[in-house]
Amino acid sequence: MEHVFPSREPKSRPTSRPTHECGICGIYGHEDAAKLTYFGLYALQHRGQESAGIVSGNGQNMYLHKDMGLVPEVFTEANLQRLTGHLAVGHVRYSTTGESSIINTQPFMVTHQGIPLAVAHNGNLVNSLDLRNHLEKKGSIFQTTMDSEVVIHLMARTMHMGLTKAIKESFACIRGAYSLLLMTPDTMIAVRDPNGFRPLCLGRLADGAYVVASETCALDLITAEYVRDIEPGEVVIINKDGLESIFPWSPRRKSYCIFEQVYFARPDSDIFGTNVYAVRKRMGEILAREAKIDADFVMPFPDSGNYAAIGYSQASGIPLEMGMIRNHYVGRTFIQPSQAMRDFSVRVKLNPVGSLLKGKRVIIVEDSIIRGTTGRSRVKALRDVGAKEIHMLVSCPPTRHACYYGIDFPTTTQLIASTKNLEEITEYLGLDSLTYLSLEGLVEATGLPKDNFCLACFDGNYPVAPDLSFTKDALGGCGCG
Amino acid sequence: MEHVFPSREPKSRPTSRPTHECGICGIYGHEDAAKLTYFGLYALQHRGQESAGIVSGNGQNMYLHKDMGLVPEVFTEANLQRLTGHLAVGHVRYSTTGESSIINTQPFMVTHQGIPLAVAHNGNLVNSLDLRNHLEKKGSIFQTTMDSEVVIHLMARTMHMGLTKAIKESFACIRGAYSLLLMTPDTMIAVRDPNGFRPLCLGRLADGAYVVASETCALDLITAEYVRDIEPGEVVIINKDGLESIFPWSPRRKSYCIFEQVYFARPDSDIFGTNVYAVRKRMGEILAREAKIDADFVMPFPDSGNYAAIGYSQASGIPLEMGMIRNHYVGRTFIQPSQAMRDFSVRVKLNPVGSLLKGKRVIIVEDSIIRGTTGRSRVKALRDVGAKEIHMLVSCPPTRHACYYGIDFPTTTQLIASTKNLEEITEYLGLDSLTYLSLEGLVEATGLPKDNFCLACFDGNYPVAPDLSFTKDALGGCGCG
Amino acid sequence: MEHVFPSREPKSRPTSRPTHECGICGIYGHEDAAKLTYFGLYALQHRGQESAGIVSGNGQNMYLHKDMGLVPEVFTEANLQRLTGHLAVGHVRYSTTGESSIINTQPFMVTHQGIPLAVAHNGNLVNSLDLRNHLEKKGSIFQTTMDSEVVIHLMARTMHMGLTKAIKESFACIRGAYSLLLMTPDTMIAVRDPNGFRPLCLGRLADGAYVVASETCALDLITAEYVRDIEPGEVVIINKDGLESIFPWSPRRKSYCIFEQVYFARPDSDIFGTNVYAVRKRMGEILAREAKIDADFVMPFPDSGNYAAIGYSQASGIPLEMGMIRNHYVGRTFIQPSQAMRDFSVRVKLNPVGSLLKGKRVIIVEDSIIRGTTGRSRVKALRDVGAKEIHMLVSCPPTRHACYYGIDFPTTTQLIASTKNLEEITEYLGLDSLTYLSLEGLVEATGLPKDNFCLACFDGNYPVAPDLSFTKDALGGCGCG
Amino acid sequence: MEHVFPSREPKSRPTSRPTHECGICGIYGHEDAAKLTYFGLYALQHRGQESAGIVSGNGQNMYLHKDMGLVPEVFTEANLQRLTGHLAVGHVRYSTTGESSIINTQPFMVTHQGIPLAVAHNGNLVNSLDLRNHLEKKGSIFQTTMDSEVVIHLMARTMHMGLTKAIKESFACIRGAYSLLLMTPDTMIAVRDPNGFRPLCLGRLADGAYVVASETCALDLITAEYVRDIEPGEVVIINKDGLESIFPWSPRRKSYCIFEQVYFARPDSDIFGTNVYAVRKRMGEILAREAKIDADFVMPFPDSGNYAAIGYSQASGIPLEMGMIRNHYVGRTFIQPSQAMRDFSVRVKLNPVGSLLKGKRVIIVEDSIIRGTTGRSRVKALRDVGAKEIHMLVSCPPTRHACYYGIDFPTTTQLIASTKNLEEITEYLGLDSLTYLSLEGLVEATGLPKDNFCLACFDGNYPVAPDLSFTKDALGGCGCG
Repeated sequence: MEHVFPSREPKSRPTSRPTHECGICGIYGHEDAAKLTYFGLYALQHRGQESAGIVSGNGQNMYLHKDMGLVPEVFTEANLQRLTGHLAVGHVRYSTTGESSIINTQPFMVTHQGIPLAVAHNGNLVNSLDLRNHLEKKGSIFQTTMDSEVVIHLMARTMHMGLTKAIKESFACIRGAYSLLLMTPDTMIAVRDPNGFRPLCLGRLADGAYVVASETCALDLITAEYVRDIEPGEVVIINKDGLESIFPWSPRRKSYCIFEQVYFARPDSDIFGTNVYAVRKRMGEILAREAKIDADFVMPFPDSGNYAAIGYSQASGIPLEMGMIRNHYVGRTFIQPSQAMRDFSVRVKLNPVGSLLKGKRVIIVEDSIIRGTTGRSRVKALRDVGAKEIHMLVSCPPTRHACYYGIDFPTTTQLIASTKNLEEITEYLGLDSLTYLSLEGLVEATGLPKDNFCLACFDGNYPVAPDLSFTKDALGGCGCG
Repeated sequence: MEHVFPSREPKSRPTSRPTHECGICGIYGHEDAAKLTYFGLYALQHRGQESAGIVSGNGQNMYLHKDMGLVPEVFTEANLQRLTGHLAVGHVRYSTTGESSIINTQPFMVTHQGIPLAVAHNGNLVNSLDLRNHLEKKGSIFQTTMDSEVVIHLMARTMHMGLTKAIKESFACIRGAYSLLLMTPDTMIAVRDPNGFRPLCLGRLADGAYVVASETCALDLITAEYVRDIEPGEVVIINKDGLESIFPWSPRRKSYCIFEQVYFARPDSDIFGTNVYAVRKRMGEILAREAKIDADFVMPFPDSGNYAAIGYSQASGIPLEMGMIRNHYVGRTFIQPSQAMRDFSVRVKLNPVGSLLKGKRVIIVEDSIIRGTTGRSRVKALRDVGAKEIHMLVSCPPTRHACYYGIDFPTTTQLIASTKNLEEITEYLGLDSLTYLSLEGLVEATGLPKDNFCLACFDGNYPVAPDLSFTKDALGGCGCG
Repeated sequence: MEHVFPSREPKSRPTSRPTHECGICGIYGHEDAAKLTYFGLYALQHRGQESAGIVSGNGQNMYLHKDMGLVPEVFTEANLQRLTGHLAVGHVRYSTTGESSIINTQPFMVTHQGIPLAVAHNGNLVNSLDLRNHLEKKGSIFQTTMDSEVVIHLMARTMHMGLTKAIKESFACIRGAYSLLLMTPDTMIAVRDPNGFRPLCLGRLADGAYVVASETCALDLITAEYVRDIEPGEVVIINKDGLESIFPWSPRRKSYCIFEQVYFARPDSDIFGTNVYAVRKRMGEILAREAKIDADFVMPFPDSGNYAAIGYSQASGIPLEMGMIRNHYVGRTFIQPSQAMRDFSVRVKLNPVGSLLKGKRVIIVEDSIIRGTTGRSRVKALRDVGAKEIHMLVSCPPTRHACYYGIDFPTTTQLIASTKNLEEITEYLGLDSLTYLSLEGLVEATGLPKDNFCLACFDGNYPVAPDLSFTKDALGGCGCG
Repeated sequence: MEHVFPSREPKSRPTSRPTHECGICGIYGHEDAAKLTYFGLYALQHRGQESAGIVSGNGQNMYLHKDMGLVPEVFTEANLQRLTGHLAVGHVRYSTTGESSIINTQPFMVTHQGIPLAVAHNGNLVNSLDLRNHLEKKGSIFQTTMDSEVVIHLMARTMHMGLTKAIKESFACIRGAYSLLLMTPDTMIAVRDPNGFRPLCLGRLADGAYVVASETCALDLITAEYVRDIEPGEVVIINKDGLESIFPWSPRRKSYCIFEQVYFARPDSDIFGTNVYAVRKRMGEILAREAKIDADFVMPFPDSGNYAAIGYSQASGIPLEMGMIRNHYVGRTFIQPSQAMRDFSVRVKLNPVGSLLKGKRVIIVEDSIIRGTTGRSRVKALRDVGAKEIHMLVSCPPTRHACYYGIDFPTTTQLIASTKNLEEITEYLGLDSLTYLSLEGLVEATGLPKDNFCLACFDGNYPVAPDLSFTKDALGGCGCG
């Protein structure tokens, strides 16, 4: 166990893909609650590969196991068996390339006045530093640098009011994006912020046990039936008396994260009421309407571009090929290649099929362009094997603005579309042409009204002010003071 | 280090897919020989996931590192750096589900009369037990249960004749399939059996270093240029005097393993002179000619069925969809699921997209059917989400006969096609219809004459008698006695 | 990382020896502060074998590494190198046989209001649960079940008063035994309770760096000069302005733990102003005066009985022999022996020399008798090899009362001397005779006045009431409220 | 698993103490054979700390587990349970400071002609390289660089003659020191060379099971009764027909290693018919006769000097003190100390008791002086705390000659007594006087005739010529050819 203090700053991560914060899953009312939660996390692994954890409860005690690593690395038959009880909450956290920090794993758990309390959190609070400062001045000592710990401290100070009132008061202070699960030894509580940034759904197993999960693919794996989404602003309390739903706060405009549809969620999940595969295929169909290109074939960068490429191919009549082959054994760490091996890190993941590409005019379908570095290398790899023309279609508009609600985009200046225009990006990527899907096209593909979404990464309109100034009055007003 | 003696019997492995024996890669003439070999193995990981090893040489000494695990698990910057020298040979070995046995990892290496000698072997000898018994009676002590060790013992007894003659004499005793690399501190030797069962190719780096690898995808990753295939019956000796090619034995009929084209090789490799992707796509095209089916869409079981599915879709005009989503984080070990979770092991790898499949008539393209158990579960998973009709196309004929040349098929009685007829298999799998590609169609897809291939798994005609009786006379005649 | 919540109860440990709580060591003013602290802990390993930890500071940041295990297991060159800075504080903790609990390792560290603060604690607070309840009611969340965490919370609430006043106020609430080190990024503070239960000494390296350690043997190992003991009730603050000594609280009667002299401290340490070896040898000399026994030789149970045995031998003229040989390779975990192996756990540590003992009348010198179980087995092992008479001398009086100040004695009912009289103990141990050193003799051996010591384990007079009732008024009065 | 080839040269080890080659233990006829062997190895740990291994047999199969590390590190309940069967043979090997080499661990085991065969060897063969060369020329391939492997190859080539004859023929070729155990699935064979260099004893458990072990302390731990020593030149074969003893070779002069009595064996063992403790005590008594010195007290360097120091004290009347305290927690690896910490590596193991030594005239009793480096540092440590006069007594004569029979002495030029005279050594060590025990005194202490011992390290008379030239004729004559 090793720590450096203080280190409140998030590590900078040299990723060129947006990385997600987290996925959560909880079970209430099943003797194998921890094991079912484990499988739920397995299905949600794409939402976080840095660490995983599960806390279980049996009405009296709570049992926690968490560690750095993928779900099957963190859990064994032996440690899962120790997580006894009929309710459990699990969490997967995003991957970084730097040092590990086990202290920031979740679920985060404390015992206060003899009562254990745990939280598993997906999202990002915009006023957590202000809240933390306020609480520290009053004598609280924080154990981690996670914004989720603020939730626990606010709850600790209000629990004497009773659970429902504690939730109402604590979350009234909190601004930002959160889909989270709270757990005591006998109760599981699902909370989704009033804007509903992150998805959260409710399911039920054949024997009546409740499931709450970030995406429906977790329900599929454990053969739970999808019941409905947890609503924005809803608090669902599940215990031996059944399920109670309350809406403690005044409603706000919906702000679904559209990037869940573009990139993050699994294509077999239904998110915000629609199937992700179908939405992505429609993006490709709309691209075919918006961008007519003459080419020998269309190909995705697998696997995220697969579905829009299928849509584009079907709508345009241009044949689909799988021009780059994915290496399924690429681990998370590489040994540095030799000097001679140009563009190794691209080819080790996706190797172009030379005989297919040689002399061809190809259209690539990509889900999004963040920094452009990966795309540039991939395009070069296609040129190296002899592709004659390379056109790229992107199934969303240019990403120009940082995200404050739980997606780990690079800073604005690192977003290629915020510093270069279309022509410059085309040249940088080495393309013959580049076409982004229009914002209207993107929204059309989702089948939902535009004002249901947070589109801030495209248009800069932030539904919750990220720099919201925090005042004591505000806190005092929310009862946590 | 733990051993049980004796245990000559191969472990029974409850796999339902054919698993390959091995992949090999060697470099001669580069200061980063071991590192380049490491990357070559990385590209060949699909040919063996049980263990990996590399031996390097600097003209004087040889350095070996090998262990159970995937290539990136076995090697670190630190242990690779200890593998110094200008030549190196590496090996990946197939995966089993049972106990590990580090003693059977490769390259296998000994020091005899002060000279180190190593071998990395892909294939299977049909008379290794006879040879071993003969050698043991003469006082030899074997360290492993690998047939490859016989090669080393034969070489040890003939090395006094000089390297070339030792190879000629030693391999004259050996029957079966082998593409292998031998290495001394200053020489790398590639040997391919006269039938040429397994692929083996020669490449060259820009700076002149030689590369030998099982598949061309290893050349691609290290940006080596493909020169040519090592020929059946050819021995290539590479040392400071350059490359020498000899054909020490009388030629035999070619017997390329057609299953390399059907399933094993990576689609971005060129094998036996043709690109695997193109051959698989043609299989699908020929299937479209041989089997006309009315359906809403065609879908592969990813990823091995992808390319034939594309060929079928393009030739038939039936749209392609990705009806099952692959979970990219599935590890090699699972925790046993709960009772309630039906068909979990299918769904954890491939989750069907319910909203896409519901009420649809679908055609599945599968590369091959071995036991039928996996296919049955997958078909059931499609039924569970509401697929109305399910037709399956298989891009090869029924597999009815065991392989003795290095593919780990189940025994004949476990091959579903050897005990059930078409109708029974169709019913067992829960299909509306099932169509195999014809043997002629399969051969047509490869673009090569039928008599170039070993088709024994389909037609039972074994090019080298697997039970070839071994006699002292034979041995005596080959000079190893 | 695995936890069970709640678990405030200390684990019961089936030890038959008193086990010590902890040892501490700190360095101020040396560029290798962490490494020197490491060696200090090495010398103090006998005071705690469960876990070890070091926190370092460079004026700005603090760096912590701690883990379960012995000092050389916990620290590596690599992790020590990351503990940079000119001051460092280390801790070793006692050994338990049960589950590990990394959460309760020390130094314990938090960041509060942006300021890191760490504590390393030797001793035991008698009112920590009361203080904890009080603080939790005010909203504090505790991370561990250690009494040391109370110190940190009290400090956090008073730090705004300035460091000196914070210490004065915080410790005014605290009752019990504590020799501890506090550390911020630029200051090291040594605190010893007004009774002075546990030892704590000050040393200085040749280059001027300050050392604080539980025992002088830590100074010896790093070649620091012994300066003086930290006084009971003294607070020593060391930072860039030098060393400041304050006595913030009203003085109390000295209560040195006499068991440090009897058993815990290393014989090469000077404790409470006298050398432990010399004191123990005098115990043996006084035993020779108090108990005259006719025997062939006297022998210790090595190594703790060695010094009193030497004293007894020299004073009585009865020869000394080493009748039991210690196995230096006994690890901390055993595989359970077979049924046939009687008294294995005794013999594996101390094997009797049969040819020496056969037919002899022997006197054993033992430092103390706690439960009597180990002694009984050892005596039996001597009988088994043929010892004719076995007399035991114990170099302290009967231990009849529990300790509340940091020594992990069994509960009173498990102390053999609290439930059996001399005759019964003699019989239970299988002895021909048993003689305890008198309390006066014990005190005489130390060379200090009787009222300097806590003798509670022998006479039941507790210097600080262990059940001291905690009231809000008291807290309010100390300024931490 | 990592190897460097070739590396026949033994590693040079910078030890300043003679290190022993090995200890062996075997059990026949007990259902817990492996577990009892484990405890036997535990008692023999002082004879080898580098690696440990056990092979068990159940009449049909053999099971082997071995690894680098101490006995309790190598074995767990789990891996011991897999070593089933009624007979077992174990081995501990000496410690080195360099790289580990698992390939050279023992028991060494092969399967030849379907029959498993294992060997555990204590000693050193003087003609193993010659034998190896001879065998390699005949086609044998060696797996290790251990001389013990030669035994196996010779046995493999003669086993067809039957076990007894195979032993007779195989060992007729072998020259040197060996006490070893051979094992097949149903038979355990103990062999001791005709000179009887290394000890080997036979014991019996209460239920009739046989035990063979290097020293009697192994019998003590498992409560086996000592039966007798295995005689020089004796072969004991134990199987279901009972115990058979044969003497296949012509007798030779006894050559017991006297260093076993001086240093290696445990004091609680009986070796060559006498108790080691008693012999060492007599060495001290004879030293008192040979060297009369006026001093305040005599002290050992613990623990090896303890027994001669007791003898000296009792015979001379000079009091015994324990002037240096051993740190029982010193691990096998150290972090390098700081520059400031002079003579750290001495003090970390043995800390002088300053207040005892200051101003005193002391006599140190040391068992032997090899290089003199350790002794020099220890003497300096005593001077540093103020010892006024330091005299050293050594309980054996000057060690001037290398050992070829299994003791890892430094080379002759590194033995201080082979390059310096008494005066020079006295000065080098920083002593006031230095006295070695006479050779006659040493032999007298053992109670056995002088011609029973190998005294080569003292007098250079080697009982078996270490450079014995090996000829084919010799081999041919022994029937292994």
